[in-house]
Amino acid sequence: MQISPLLENLIESLRVLPGVGPKSAQRMAYHLLQRNRAGGINLAKAVEEAMTHIDHCELCRTFTEEKVCNICKNPRRQANGQLCVVETPADIQAVEQTGQFSGRYFVLMGHLSPLDGIGPREIGLDVLQQRLESESFYEIILATNPTIEGDATANYIAEMCLPYNIKVTRIAHGIPVGGELEMVDGTTLSHSFVGRRDLNL
Amino acid sequence: MQISPLLENLIESLRVLPGVGPKSAQRMAYHLLQRNRAGGINLAKAVEEAMTHIDHCELCRTFTEEKVCNICKNPRRQANGQLCVVETPADIQAVEQTGQFSGRYFVLMGHLSPLDGIGPREIGLDVLQQRLESESFYEIILATNPTIEGDATANYIAEMCLPYNIKVTRIAHGIPVGGELEMVDGTTLSHSFVGRRDLNL
Repeated sequence: MQISPLLENLIESLRVLPGVGPKSAQRMAYHLLQRNRAGGINLAKAVEEAMTHIDHCELCRTFTEEKVCNICKNPRRQANGQLCVVETPADIQAVEQTGQFSGRYFVLMGHLSPLDGIGPREIGLDVLQQRLESESFYEIILATNPTIEGDATANYIAEMCLPYNIKVTRIAHGIPVGGELEMVDGTTLSHSFVGRRDLNL
Repeated sequence: MQISPLLENLIESLRVLPGVGPKSAQRMAYHLLQRNRAGGINLAKAVEEAMTHIDHCELCRTFTEEKVCNICKNPRRQANGQLCVVETPADIQAVEQTGQFSGRYFVLMGHLSPLDGIGPREIGLDVLQQRLESESFYEIILATNPTIEGDATANYIAEMCLPYNIKVTRIAHGIPVGGELEMVDGTTLSHSFVGRRDLNL
């Protein structure tokens, strides 16, 4: 017994969102209808505009509605000469929040995964190669995730940079700040020993 | 540093959904952009149509895009003569799924709550009164939630029905099927004793 086809359609459509099952979708639909129609209209407009206008930056491949994103356009960031390679646009947000980096980014939109058919082309390494040839970078910082795939991708890019004589670095792996030594897994702990630093005060 | 105003706007707008904080909103936005733009477009359309076209049924006050909903229009349900009073449209779904009821509904869209300024008018009891006067019901089933407010609302409606000489019933409170006696709270258990039934096999 369909009471309202539009309502059923709304509930069904909300399930494209990650982590939203039938019950939450129903709750969301009723919430919008009962309490926040204006918010719903805004949401519809925001989703529609984002889906149709947001594309990838031609230089760094992050999400933007312009041809080249604000970070790539910024002259101060261009002068910096550092390029940070990350897996997703969300990683840019995370790095930006640290305030430790003021160079530009390159977003892979994933990592190498040959079994899933994701090779160098799929993560935009041809675009990166072109940039290495046409621009002159002082340093490439590889900030892919500390997973097997992320490490493999970092190594692949490091080899790719060899002919250009650029400094290539990988972000440090080790014990998270505030963590306890005895709680940390063995791999992380051995990474933190291998990557130990001089404390020549 | 705003990278993409449209993206920021999308993330902000997703937060109107109940249970969606900044992190989930970001995850949802990236998921739609990266994996399911068609689903996103559909979602935008579904939300927009639902927000602009769905209104309340003139008879039972549930959500529908027509003047009178499919259940109220159904001649077989009209002939049944039972009216089930529930708090929300979601409750209709729940009752429908039991397959135990084939009458019509009346949706209060809440419950009496004088401290919050929700009186009989706000939950549509004037509409209900009109229906009691103009139609002839065989039975009113009060299926409001088993809470203090739900019980109070049920009692109020029961008194409202007195002059019309209609059978008024309240759904049974008791131990949920599959539950264990020792785990059930005292109030529920005492309800299940007060509401015990003859088992004259």
